[in-house]
Amino acid sequence: MKLKNNLHTQTGWDIYETSFNPDQLVTTGSNFMIGNGYLGYRGTPSEWGADKYVACIVSDTYDAAQDNWRELCNVPNGLSTKLFIDNQMLSLDDQNTEHYRRSLNLKYGIFEREQTWKSKTGKKVHIKVEKFASLSNVHLIAMKYEIRVEEPITIKLITGIDGIVWDLKGKHLHNSVSEVLRDILLNTTYTKEQNIQINVGESINWIGIDDLKENIFQTSESIYREFILELNPNKSITLEKYVIIYHSNDLSNPKEQTINDLEQERIIGYQSLKNEHQAVWDKLWEDSYIEIIGNLEDQTLVNFNLYHNFIATPMHAELPIGARGLSTQVYQGAAFWDQEIFNLPMYIYTQPQIAKKILKYRFNTLPGAQKKAQELGYKGAFYAWTSGKTGEELFPDYFFKDLISGRKVRNHFNDWQIHISSDIAYAVWQYYQATHDWDFVLNYGAEIIFEVAKFLGSHVYFKKDKDRYEFIRLLGPDEYHENVDNNVFTNYLAHFTFQKALVIYVKMQVNYTMQLNNLFAKLSINQKDIEYWREIQEKLYLPKPDEKSKLIEQFDGYFKLEDIIPLELSKRLINPDEYWGWPNGIAVETQVLKQADVLQTFAVLKNFPKEVIQSNYDYYEPRTEHGSSLSPSVHAQVACQAGYPDKAYQYFQEAVSIDMYNASKKYLSGGSFLGGIHTAACGATWLMIIQGFAGFYIDNDDNLIFNPCLPISWESISFCLQVRKNKLEITINQEKLIIISNKENKSYLKIIINKEHLHIKPGEKIRTFYQKK
Amino acid sequence: MKLKNNLHTQTGWDIYETSFNPDQLVTTGSNFMIGNGYLGYRGTPSEWGADKYVACIVSDTYDAAQDNWRELCNVPNGLSTKLFIDNQMLSLDDQNTEHYRRSLNLKYGIFEREQTWKSKTGKKVHIKVEKFASLSNVHLIAMKYEIRVEEPITIKLITGIDGIVWDLKGKHLHNSVSEVLRDILLNTTYTKEQNIQINVGESINWIGIDDLKENIFQTSESIYREFILELNPNKSITLEKYVIIYHSNDLSNPKEQTINDLEQERIIGYQSLKNEHQAVWDKLWEDSYIEIIGNLEDQTLVNFNLYHNFIATPMHAELPIGARGLSTQVYQGAAFWDQEIFNLPMYIYTQPQIAKKILKYRFNTLPGAQKKAQELGYKGAFYAWTSGKTGEELFPDYFFKDLISGRKVRNHFNDWQIHISSDIAYAVWQYYQATHDWDFVLNYGAEIIFEVAKFLGSHVYFKKDKDRYEFIRLLGPDEYHENVDNNVFTNYLAHFTFQKALVIYVKMQVNYTMQLNNLFAKLSINQKDIEYWREIQEKLYLPKPDEKSKLIEQFDGYFKLEDIIPLELSKRLINPDEYWGWPNGIAVETQVLKQADVLQTFAVLKNFPKEVIQSNYDYYEPRTEHGSSLSPSVHAQVACQAGYPDKAYQYFQEAVSIDMYNASKKYLSGGSFLGGIHTAACGATWLMIIQGFAGFYIDNDDNLIFNPCLPISWESISFCLQVRKNKLEITINQEKLIIISNKENKSYLKIIINKEHLHIKPGEKIRTFYQKK
Repeated sequence: MKLKNNLHTQTGWDIYETSFNPDQLVTTGSNFMIGNGYLGYRGTPSEWGADKYVACIVSDTYDAAQDNWRELCNVPNGLSTKLFIDNQMLSLDDQNTEHYRRSLNLKYGIFEREQTWKSKTGKKVHIKVEKFASLSNVHLIAMKYEIRVEEPITIKLITGIDGIVWDLKGKHLHNSVSEVLRDILLNTTYTKEQNIQINVGESINWIGIDDLKENIFQTSESIYREFILELNPNKSITLEKYVIIYHSNDLSNPKEQTINDLEQERIIGYQSLKNEHQAVWDKLWEDSYIEIIGNLEDQTLVNFNLYHNFIATPMHAELPIGARGLSTQVYQGAAFWDQEIFNLPMYIYTQPQIAKKILKYRFNTLPGAQKKAQELGYKGAFYAWTSGKTGEELFPDYFFKDLISGRKVRNHFNDWQIHISSDIAYAVWQYYQATHDWDFVLNYGAEIIFEVAKFLGSHVYFKKDKDRYEFIRLLGPDEYHENVDNNVFTNYLAHFTFQKALVIYVKMQVNYTMQLNNLFAKLSINQKDIEYWREIQEKLYLPKPDEKSKLIEQFDGYFKLEDIIPLELSKRLINPDEYWGWPNGIAVETQVLKQADVLQTFAVLKNFPKEVIQSNYDYYEPRTEHGSSLSPSVHAQVACQAGYPDKAYQYFQEAVSIDMYNASKKYLSGGSFLGGIHTAACGATWLMIIQGFAGFYIDNDDNLIFNPCLPISWESISFCLQVRKNKLEITINQEKLIIISNKENKSYLKIIINKEHLHIKPGEKIRTFYQKK
Repeated sequence: MKLKNNLHTQTGWDIYETSFNPDQLVTTGSNFMIGNGYLGYRGTPSEWGADKYVACIVSDTYDAAQDNWRELCNVPNGLSTKLFIDNQMLSLDDQNTEHYRRSLNLKYGIFEREQTWKSKTGKKVHIKVEKFASLSNVHLIAMKYEIRVEEPITIKLITGIDGIVWDLKGKHLHNSVSEVLRDILLNTTYTKEQNIQINVGESINWIGIDDLKENIFQTSESIYREFILELNPNKSITLEKYVIIYHSNDLSNPKEQTINDLEQERIIGYQSLKNEHQAVWDKLWEDSYIEIIGNLEDQTLVNFNLYHNFIATPMHAELPIGARGLSTQVYQGAAFWDQEIFNLPMYIYTQPQIAKKILKYRFNTLPGAQKKAQELGYKGAFYAWTSGKTGEELFPDYFFKDLISGRKVRNHFNDWQIHISSDIAYAVWQYYQATHDWDFVLNYGAEIIFEVAKFLGSHVYFKKDKDRYEFIRLLGPDEYHENVDNNVFTNYLAHFTFQKALVIYVKMQVNYTMQLNNLFAKLSINQKDIEYWREIQEKLYLPKPDEKSKLIEQFDGYFKLEDIIPLELSKRLINPDEYWGWPNGIAVETQVLKQADVLQTFAVLKNFPKEVIQSNYDYYEPRTEHGSSLSPSVHAQVACQAGYPDKAYQYFQEAVSIDMYNASKKYLSGGSFLGGIHTAACGATWLMIIQGFAGFYIDNDDNLIFNPCLPISWESISFCLQVRKNKLEITINQEKLIIISNKENKSYLKIIINKEHLHIKPGEKIRTFYQKK
């Protein structure tokens, strides 16, 4: 099936292209990437180098070059493989390609390239390259390079480790040593700031050819094997390549482990490794698949996004999900609030063990968040806007620059966007609601939520003349309006945090007194703090819908700003790439939003009346510029709540296309390169379907709510949910909702479908008609 | 005596120049201006027009042209007089001037010009022009134009009313009608927005010539008389010109009054009018003179500044003192905090009846301040940053523009610079302290201070975790740092306001219960408000000196900003005229100040220990750019407090030279024309000498404090003070302080000189040595 933007699919579980567009280097390199949460390897041909955005980004390698931002490292490229005929290198850039196909298997994360290429001297070669980043051993990337000719020719093949890497914020690697150990090529290098030792090892295996002579040549950074191959038309030859990557944050002797792994994996062999790898993927999809009947394109887009959500997530460790995953160094490979609000729900409800790891990461980074709070004059935990391994703030004070003056701009993402802390408390509670994993709350969650409450209590101001608490000088998710007061999302989420802190407190006080006392002692919390939180919870100002218009003001004074639509406003741009926000961007003094915080509030807190949701959707939607990739998916979800299925579907299509169809507007904003996979949009794909179209959430009484609102072009959707160790299979078509409770389930579950209350027992199947919105 | 910058003086009571510098049109036009607080007439030759910044700015004529800023009007120029020989106009611009002298008598506000000019045809004429803006009838400007020749020649003289005026923010006047009524030329015009009727009438009188034929010619805006005159060398002829200005905010029939005045004044005649005028000036100087023995230049500069403070002040009415007086339309002819903190002290201590009028103006404008507070979501009185007649906010939201992008900038002078309200409360208290005019407090002052306290109470936030009140999102006097918290000047002055509000409350509660109840009823204040103010007074955060360094932080986080000196910082300018402040000017993220708010706090509140004053002076002075004309005078005062007489004198010289020596850096900042007299610097001249070098203030126990610190080059200073209807004459030389209490005084006064307590009775003279700092 032909898709948009040069892409095709056969089954919905794959994408492929048959022509190469050099203008889309950045995008296609991201879209076709392989990865496993430990590393991301961009979907680039093996001939390319740093100049064409080749990258193998490895998790847990945060390092700052000189005075630059700390970011994940791009490690030496162990897959580098170049084929020469008569000293001309096979390439995509010239006109000599007769056949070309690049594809990505979304089910198993397998990249394939087929190419038929003719040299200037008229000699033709067919190659077929396959590679995957293993899920069974996340340190392994394996590649198969198959060569076939139609007449006898001699080729030269150079394959090895390319140590010249693309870096976004300065060179990280130095003191590189390349060596040959037995038949292994090994590169050892170190990061400049943190002195992380990184090892990239490579070993190969030839099939279909004997009697090979190998020349090694090397620089300090790179090391290659060179082969001169006499090829015959009657049989193809294949190079199997195993690359292993370890660094000293993984274990103490990465070099030894690299060599061990390489020797072992080569013995297992390419096909067996691939089988093991695929088995792990099968298990993931078993719980997290979403099936759409009736629209193959949408099915492909959904698979694409869920795939990218998986490979961006460090499922193997307690580490952050980067805002661009492991697709580029953009946003430093670090977590933002995206992680909790956009990436995590899919895990919470389908792979809670992964969600737990991510939340455990937030627990581990409490010291970083406490340090940040302290440095800014607060108490408790002010989580980093950009959170790497330690949770210390990685976001630079100066991010965007004023493109007109060239002057740096003090952005306040890191110190004014306080909702990040509440978002994490919110996710902890979501996890608890879905799992009833009280042990997690006792051991980790309570501490997170108490520390966030403590932080918020040290940030909030009391306005005595109005007898209410207020949050002042904020930046909400809508980043075009900095320095605002009582941002609706910030205040509501803070309120949620205090509520849950008090719920946890009460529960611990009754049944877990000792643990509570220990925790209070550890965190220096006392009864007065609890009273303070209770008072804030009672008196925190929550902007309410206007009685007549039902509108909620995004922040104090928003409705007084200039009312203009984004298209009209955009005419004021002097430079097309300039940032629209603080301090003097075109949107600052207007009602034009990067994303709509009132709608974002509806998306997370489900307890607003429908007429309020509708009025606010109608008001904010035309004023929203969607300058954030987070924005369309929120509109899709809230349009479902409002009963606007057509609008929901339109925003769904926009959100799922951001990367695959390169719908993101630009790589540059305010002078910053921002390319790579928009991981939050990938996570949001799950949200849009399950919490949007299926209308699923769990209410405070543990009811599973479904309010379906299916796009007309879809026959049905099917998916699974994990709720308190029970697995449900759900299918929704245009009329009916079918829920099957797995036989192995332990408990019965309460379900509400369009206000109808139902129960489902293990092994039971519910089939019910629902009322269309 | 030769002064700087092309100027001379003979007696210290005059300035004159003998050559004309066309590059300094704006400055000299301001410096040589005449005025009387009702009107200001720039010191320009009578031949000039709008293109050379001729202006006659009239008080109480606030009007907004189209959507532009409201400002005072420049009215038609009734002095316009042009002399022609052989159709060539006498001018200063060509090379034909043989003798030239422009002078200003600072004692009586009399402008003089002498010029000997030769036409291209070789004919020579001597002219001598004199003019003054009457203090006995503030609606009158009188001019004497004397012509003398050396051989018989024919000249043409055109004199009348020039209706084409220079406007800063759009054309205000329309529907002009010119007419001849009896022998009066009369221009009637109207302002576009407010429809103020303005009348400018002119009548003349010739001396030394008979048998004159007058031709009238006119446009709708202008009207002129033309004379052809045959002149003889043996005697000079003189044109006497009377101009009367009234408008419909003065009285209901300005036209009739203009005609009446003109007829009357012409009968009285030029010389008698001048005598009456001078008598009023004599009375003013009798109480407000400052005599400096030992430095004629400084004496001249002081006279110049006090003169300009007087003519900028609407002594005749309850109206504001403009930040540029009546010298240009810059700053809209409106009052800023300059009025209370810089202009008013001279009046409070030497002409309390004028101070009372200005403060009464603030009482009259309470409704405007209350409206502003309400519009911004506060209670009480938030005084306008830029206050015209009604006290509604005149300051535009967009003042400076970003010169690099050309984009307008939302400046927050009007909504974040809340200290303006406290400054007015402070001035009310100063007036009360100097006069003990309790009636004023009862009738006006209490209401002002209570309303300011109410405003501050609605602005302040309580930080429960720190158990203190804070002021958030401020702009202090240092305008390079907007959006700051707990600005030292703002917090201290707010604290002062609450203190005095409570003092007044207690005094009224004891002895004026009925008045208090009435006032409370009028202002909807109750006992709870009083308790609230008391709590704020107790718990308001006042940044205190660091124990070790003694430094006070100007606002939260100031010491963490980049530490750089202004000279170094200035190298970052892209455009020399760009504004250094908000939102992205070069000083914003640095410690470089426009003016030093900690020093400003010392200047108004005298109760800081000397070592604290010294440490902070030493720290802040090198970091201050003096981007405000208010800054040097504050440094001079605080240097006296610190015991740094040399530095004090250096800053004194800078402050008094701002206008006379054109020391102000530029007319343009951030794209705004800012020319004209820096009225605050004029008022500050009195402050620097009396509160700085003489070290005078009144403490809370009604003691008159003197801590002299005289510049070395001065033999002595003499001046008068009015304290509670007692007049004191003070002389301070390098060793002694002499105080004479007037015989007619009513009470004895307590005096402290260098901590020595003294009493002085009416008629007594104290002569005491003081300790040099």
